[in-house]
Parts: sequence; structure tokens; C-alpha cells
Amino acid sequence: MPVKLLFIGDIIGSPGRQAVGRELHRLVDRYQLDLVIANGENSAGGFGVTEETAKELFGLGVNVLTSGNHIWDKKESVPYIRREERLIRPANYPPETAGRGSVVVRTAGGVKVGVLNLEGRVFMNNLDCPFRCADYEVDRLRQETNIILVDFHAEATSEKIALGWYLDGKVSAVIGTHTHVQTADERIFPGGTAYLTDAGMTGSFDSVIGIKKELAMEKFLTQIPVRFEVAKKDVRLNGVVVEVDETTGKALAIERVSISC
Amino acid sequence: MPVKLLFIGDIIGSPGRQAVGRELHRLVDRYQLDLVIANGENSAGGFGVTEETAKELFGLGVNVLTSGNHIWDKKESVPYIRREERLIRPANYPPETAGRGSVVVRTAGGVKVGVLNLEGRVFMNNLDCPFRCADYEVDRLRQETNIILVDFHAEATSEKIALGWYLDGKVSAVIGTHTHVQTADERIFPGGTAYLTDAGMTGSFDSVIGIKKELAMEKFLTQIPVRFEVAKKDVRLNGVVVEVDETTGKALAIERVSISC
Amino acid sequence: MPVKLLFIGDIIGSPGRQAVGRELHRLVDRYQLDLVIANGENSAGGFGVTEETAKELFGLGVNVLTSGNHIWDKKESVPYIRREERLIRPANYPPETAGRGSVVVRTAGGVKVGVLNLEGRVFMNNLDCPFRCADYEVDRLRQETNIILVDFHAEATSEKIALGWYLDGKVSAVIGTHTHVQTADERIFPGGTAYLTDAGMTGSFDSVIGIKKELAMEKFLTQIPVRFEVAKKDVRLNGVVVEVDETTGKALAIERVSISC
Amino acid sequence: MPVKLLFIGDIIGSPGRQAVGRELHRLVDRYQLDLVIANGENSAGGFGVTEETAKELFGLGVNVLTSGNHIWDKKESVPYIRREERLIRPANYPPETAGRGSVVVRTAGGVKVGVLNLEGRVFMNNLDCPFRCADYEVDRLRQETNIILVDFHAEATSEKIALGWYLDGKVSAVIGTHTHVQTADERIFPGGTAYLTDAGMTGSFDSVIGIKKELAMEKFLTQIPVRFEVAKKDVRLNGVVVEVDETTGKALAIERVSISC
Ligand SMILES: [Fe+2]
Ligand SMILES: [Fe+2]
Ligand SMILES: [Fe+2]
Ligand SMILES: [Fe+2]
Ligand SMILES: [Fe+2]
Ligand SMILES: [Fe+2]
Ligand SMILES: [Fe+2]
Ligand SMILES: [Fe+2]
Repeated sequence: MPVKLLFIGDIIGSPGRQAVGRELHRLVDRYQLDLVIANGENSAGGFGVTEETAKELFGLGVNVLTSGNHIWDKKESVPYIRREERLIRPANYPPETAGRGSVVVRTAGGVKVGVLNLEGRVFMNNLDCPFRCADYEVDRLRQETNIILVDFHAEATSEKIALGWYLDGKVSAVIGTHTHVQTADERIFPGGTAYLTDAGMTGSFDSVIGIKKELAMEKFLTQIPVRFEVAKKDVRLNGVVVEVDETTGKALAIERVSISC
Repeated sequence: MPVKLLFIGDIIGSPGRQAVGRELHRLVDRYQLDLVIANGENSAGGFGVTEETAKELFGLGVNVLTSGNHIWDKKESVPYIRREERLIRPANYPPETAGRGSVVVRTAGGVKVGVLNLEGRVFMNNLDCPFRCADYEVDRLRQETNIILVDFHAEATSEKIALGWYLDGKVSAVIGTHTHVQTADERIFPGGTAYLTDAGMTGSFDSVIGIKKELAMEKFLTQIPVRFEVAKKDVRLNGVVVEVDETTGKALAIERVSISC
Repeated sequence: MPVKLLFIGDIIGSPGRQAVGRELHRLVDRYQLDLVIANGENSAGGFGVTEETAKELFGLGVNVLTSGNHIWDKKESVPYIRREERLIRPANYPPETAGRGSVVVRTAGGVKVGVLNLEGRVFMNNLDCPFRCADYEVDRLRQETNIILVDFHAEATSEKIALGWYLDGKVSAVIGTHTHVQTADERIFPGGTAYLTDAGMTGSFDSVIGIKKELAMEKFLTQIPVRFEVAKKDVRLNGVVVEVDETTGKALAIERVSISC
Repeated sequence: MPVKLLFIGDIIGSPGRQAVGRELHRLVDRYQLDLVIANGENSAGGFGVTEETAKELFGLGVNVLTSGNHIWDKKESVPYIRREERLIRPANYPPETAGRGSVVVRTAGGVKVGVLNLEGRVFMNNLDCPFRCADYEVDRLRQETNIILVDFHAEATSEKIALGWYLDGKVSAVIGTHTHVQTADERIFPGGTAYLTDAGMTGSFDSVIGIKKELAMEKFLTQIPVRFEVAKKDVRLNGVVVEVDETTGKALAIERVSISC
């Protein structure tokens, strides 16, 4: 029996959350999904995540929330990040960092799925090596399950693809996030790992990566700080469905999803 | 009569040039192409362009070569860059820079097409503002033709999409390059400008963005300089076809191309 | 008759302003200063400048305030930046930017002094070329006076020293700011331009570049956003005195200043 | 009995090595030095270190060579780095990296001195956390000696000062390198650690940080790769003398050195 996982790209503010509310049940039906994972680092007003927005997304059927560099934007959420196991942050933050970098959950059918979150270093924060961190975390997760999805939140395509190859044969899927633009390079590597450089974003496409386009252009034109606001129109849900062999954890299929809401 | 333009993503070394040799005539037939533009910044051994590789590509049917940050890798090519009008470099390099940032060519049917090359600044070189440079160059080109394709060679998705919106209604297409990964966000903006964040690459996909994957992984794992080599297997041609109204210059259609060779 | 200029390094919050209040009149007497210039980009709570803090500093005897990347931190100050000629921002921001990049003022003795502010691009904002901007601005200023001091607000030592050499013989002094650490490389280049890579800072030295040291360490250890606060203890005033020939504008002497308050 | 250590800032090519040859014996006499440490990352033609240049410097009286990001520039030197204990590289490179990050040597008088090399992460390579690496290495070194000098090879003043405070009371001195400009902020922190943000460089000062100034300016003006060459004129030796209590390892005095050769 294959296990079917949906991964949803960065959810941007309330337009993104509404898109999940409107479309997720349809996607669950259409793809016979067993588990839904979503990147929520921008789910609260475009910057960070709060207990309220996370609970809203869990209530809508998301089983695991991953994140990235923006998860720390709302300082008041740190106690919640500490508490809520289903909301993970990149595992390669320093050892003492609040929260967890991976989680094992069960599908309705009782199958264990591991989810691991990592953050890239090229053009980003100064974190521990995501490759070595992946070695350690994947070893640990594989003691519980062969079905493992990695959200690699990173900027540079080179770092993302390199990690995909590096983990080929060890995890079910490496899915990139952070650029908010879905890439068209989905494939299954020879060792059985499904790969996509970026899952894209779930939010307004009448925007610059979810932000009101006039404000983003102003920033580039002036090089002066601009207070960004979440855009609202032309909302789409971006993601990817990965079908995995229940026993071996190897990917059987990968399919991009992009829906106008 | 629509004008049909093919833009080919960064050609990586001899595997990339061979892919063009094998596939281009088929694409010209299938899409009834009027003009072929390709990014050649990595066409010579993965780093830069030479007179020889450029002439090979022109001989294979490429009409205009654009480029980016890597065009300067082969110092001996500067005189050729100065001489050859069909090989352009980003227009927003300093005023005295060798070569040209745009060119107007004619299709076989005699229609003028402007091609403009720009380079992003986020995580890249310290160049002049690509937005203001675009204003200036597009005004100049539009005195000759309404059909203008822009190759925006940039890293950050935000900068690329912002320039797409900024030029909406002023040019026929804004096509991104540099990340070597094709994105799935092709669309036509309301003002009639076709847009794609990245056209992808033409070269080996058994690689990390065209480079032997073992070497790329070594670099990430060691953080020490590694001499990169072009990868050879699993060659694909990535690009995008844009159909443009001959009179207005507005985009009528945009379609991504990705071919296994 | 030589003209004597004092340049004060980045003033950090109220401890920095108090240091100016306590020490400036003594320095004016000791060095027989004709003009006082200070970098005020951090004078308001460590981030930005306000009308109130700028007026306080002018009231204390500062004749011209320069700035840098932090000048835009307090959005409400933009109208003041537009209005107040004695508060300048880097000249190589885009053409439409609020405020001015240079100013000509008169000493008590009636001698005209030009002050030019520039910002580096290495590891900083994406601005216009500071070298070319300097060419343009210096030409303009020299139509009014040969006595010109440049505050080059930049991170990389290479960019700062290169600009120093580039302007040698054209201006009286190139003084760096932004790193908040005074360098020991003061000299007069062969063409007569006084040079110092960084003037240092005026504020608490029981700190990490003016910020409470515990907070700065926390940031490096956690890689998570930390709300910075200005430190208070061990306050020092850093700066540099440049003696300039009134007619030729050539530097006669340069001397670093560092005073415990 | 105090122990007297001289640390020499980045030695740039043959002009830098000649400066050491000409001046070191005089400095040893004048300061009654017990040990000489020098940063050699640029000692071979401005880029990297070779067995030949390292041996030359050891022959001239340097006891330990530290380094930084440039140590890997000459690939052929890796076996030597592996072999030679007195040539160290930053300790926070990945675990498998060739060479060692620290060393314990003995003065002529038989006193053990530990030398630790670290590299910053801000605007530099993606390495392991230098703060945590320091914890580990310093603990280890202190089992052998209380006299420990740290060469922190880093760009950002904030990261350097933060590490200085972080190690205050645990090591004898934290001396910065990499910017090639000596800073004027030498001091002894309350816990007894001597600190200097940057020791400066030993090489040609008719240059941009050791490189021919015309070539450096060309790079900034063109944004195109330029082949750098070591400058030759106006050679100076930069460094710092730290006097340390033999038993406690606490710093008793710190004095900058800058000599025209
Ligand atoms: Fe995001
Ligand atoms: Fe992100
Ligand atoms: Fe490329
Ligand atoms: Fe590129
Ligand atoms: Fe500052
Ligand atoms: Fe600054
Ligand atoms: Fe160096
Ligand atoms: Fe260095």
C-alpha cells in the first residue's frame, strides 16, 4: 500500500490560510491523501507563526507544520514552539534552540511518517551544517520509520539539489521551500528519493512572493526599509504530492500541485 | 501574425551545446520559431563564453546570446564581447564595460526584436539599479520595436518578480536565468508581459546545477575551494516559448520547454 | 591659516550624545577647532536619527551630521531629513531619495567646507557606485571650496581604502565609519588627502559596538532575532582631527581622538 | 614572570616575509619576546601558504603560524597542513578538515602556550559556531596551560568583539585578523583577556590591503574579475605584543606594534 503525502508551500498570511480552508478537503479526496504537511513560517500576517494561526491550520487538516528563518518573527510564539510537537523548526539551529527539528506522526491508517526540517546556509543564517545534521536526524528517524519527508528551507538551488542527492536513498522526499516560487524540476532520484527544489507558496499571486507588489518594488527602487503587507488577490495553493512505498519508504511518484482558489 | 521566440536557459559546457545541436532544429519546426535566444554565460566549460563556443551556438541556429555574472570568466573573450553584437551582457554593468547590454535583431520574416539583458543585485555583484537601467533601455528599444524580451539574470525570486511587474506592459517578456532550475510560474501579467522566474538550464541533470554532483557536495561539506567540472549525463534542454503579437508586442502565450536529449 | 576639522565617529544613543555634551567644548578649545562633523546614524536610541536628537547635537556644537544605512530606521524622520540641510545621508542612494548627500557650510571664520557622505556596497545595500558618485559630487563641491571631508560609511576595509586612494588629491580627507571600531591607520596620502579607515564610535564601550553585550552574544549564539538595547557604561568619544590648508584644501595633519568620558 | 607574546598580522607575500626577516630579531630583543605567532594565510603570493613560505617564516623565528579563509588557496599545500603541527587553520571548519585548529608549544623557557585559530561566519564561510567551538577547544587547551592566545579571523567587528567578551577570563588574548587594517581598540577586559579587533597586516601599504591599488580600484569600478597582484612599496609590519602572567594566564599588558621597514 502506498502512503500519500501532500506538502503545501509557505502559507502567506490570512489569504494563504483561507486557501487551505477552501481547497484542502478537495485535495484530500482527489489524491486520497494520508498526511498533510505545510510550511507555516509566514502564516501569521506574512511573518512568523502564532498559536492561533497554527491551531487554525491544524483544525483545517494540516497534520504537521514545518517552518524556516521566519518562524522566530513573533517572539511571543516561542513558548508555543516549545510545547507543540507538530510545529517544527529547522533542526540545524544551535543545540539549545526552542522547539524540535523533526517529528514522527501517524497517518489515520497508523503508518508512521517522519518529517524533518532543515535550513540552508548560503545567503541565510549562520547555522550548523544541514548535511551533517541530516545524517544524524535521518539515522534517528529511520529507527522508527522508513517514510521520511524533508523540508529544506533554503535560498540557493545548488545547496538544495546537493542535499537532495546527498539524501538520495535515505529519505522518501526532499522538498525545498523559502523562495516562494514553485520549481518545475520534480523527479525521483535513482535511490528512490523524490525531489523538488521549491514547493512554491500558498497565498496571493498578485504580489511579489506574497507581499503587496507596490511595496516590494518600492523597496528595490529606494533601498530604504519598507513596511511590508500581505497581498490579497489572485490566491493560489502550491504544493506537491508524493506517493511512497509503505515498507521501503521509497518514492513511487511525485506530482506538483498548483490551484487557483 | 504572432512572432514566436524561444529562450533557452543557461547552456552548460559541451553537454549543453550538444543538446542545442541535437534538439534545436526540432524545436524550430515544432513551434514554428521566428527567433532563438539563449543564455550562454556557462557555455564554455561551465564558466564563461569564448568566441569558439559562441560561434558554435550561432551556427546551430541561436540568433542572440545573453549572459550574466559568469560572462567575464574567460578574460581572453573580452575583445570578442566588444566586437560581437549578438552576444550581450547585462546592461547595468558600469558605463565603461566592454560590450553591449541590448541588441535589436530581425527575424527571417524581417520583424525587429529587441533583447535586453539585466543582472540582479541581491546576493550578486554591485551593479547599477536594474529597474532604472530597464527604464532607460526599454525606452530606447521601443523606438525601434515593441517586441522586447528581457533576460533578467538574478538570484532572488523577489527581485525577479518585482522586475516582471515593473516592466509589465512595457516589454513582451521577462525571463529569469541564473539559478539553473526551471520554475513553474509562467504567466502573462495583466499588461501583456509574459513572465517566468527562471528558464532553467541546458546541460547535465545528473549534477548540481550542471556541475559534477560529487564536487558540489564536497564543497558544501568542506567549505574549502573545489575545482568544479561540468557533468555529462542525463542531458536536458530547458527553455520557454513566448508568442508575441507582432504589432503591439504583447504576449499571447507562454509555454515552458524541458526536453530530455 | 590651517582649518581644523573634528570628525566624531557614530554617536550611539543617549550615552553617545551625553559624551558629546561633556567633551566637545573641551576638544574645541584644545584643538582650536573650526568645524565639527559627526556621524549621527545611531544617535536616536541606537537606530536612526530624529529631529529631537539631531537638534540636541547641533545645539551642542556639531555643525554637520552625516549618516549611513541606519538613517532610515525612524520613518517619522524623513520629513526632517528632507528639510534640514546640515543632516546629510549617503549621496549614492537612488536619485529620488529624500535629503541631500553633501553640504557646504562656513566656519566661524567664514571659510567654506564641503562635507560629502557616501555608503559602501560590499556586504551592504545595493546602491549606486560610490566611486562614480564621488567623482560627480566632488567636482560640484570643488566649484565652491577646496576643503572637502568625505564620510565613507562602509564595511569592507578594501572598499574604504580603495576610495581613499581614488580620491587622493581631490579631497582633504576620507574618513570611514560604520564598523564602530577606530582603526590605527591614519595617514596622509601622497596627493594630500588625509585617510582613516574608521573613526570609531561615541558611546558605551562596555558593549558590542554600542549594544548591550549580553544581547549581542545571544544573537550570535542563537541566530534568532534579538531586540537590541543601547549599552550605558564605559562611555568614550572617538573621532579624528584633520588640519587642512585653507587655500589648497590639502591635509597638513591627521590625529585620532579617543577620550574616556 | 610574565610571558611575552608577539602576534604578527596577516603576512602578505614576499614583501611581508621580508619585513619579518628584517624586523623580527629587533622586536624579539626590544620586547624580550618569549614566543612569536603570525597569521600566514596570505604569505604565499598573497593567497595561501606553501611549505616553502611556511618554512621560511619558521626559519625567521616565527613559532606558530595561524591562518584563515585563504589557507586553502594553494591546493598542493594540504598535505603540508596535515603534517605540520605549528601551522594551524581555523578550528571551526568541519570535523574532517585537514590540519589542526589549535596547538600547544613551549617557549625557550619551557612555558606552554596554547594557540587557537577560529574563523567568523558573518560575511564569510558557512562554518561551525566559533563560540561553541571556542568553548570546546579552550577547555581542552586549559588542561595543558592557562596561557592561550586566540586568532579570530573574521570580518564583522560585532562578531569579533562579542567573542572577545565571550572568552573574557578564559583565555589570555583574543586578537582579530582578516581585515588587514590594524584597529586602535586594544584593551584588557575585566576578566583579564587582552583584546584587539584586528592586528593589521605585514606587507605593502602602498596598496589596498596588500594588493596593488590600481587593480583593487579596477575591481570596484568594473565589478569584473581582476587578477590581483601583491604590492611592493611602503612595507610595514603590524602586530601586537601581549604580556601574560605565567601562572594565571591573565593579560598584564597589550601594546600595538606598527613598524615601517
Ligand atoms: Fe517563506
Ligand atoms: Fe524563509
Ligand atoms: Fe548560469
Ligand atoms: Fe549566473
Ligand atoms: Fe553606525
Ligand atoms: Fe552603519
Ligand atoms: Fe588575510
Ligand atoms: Fe582572510
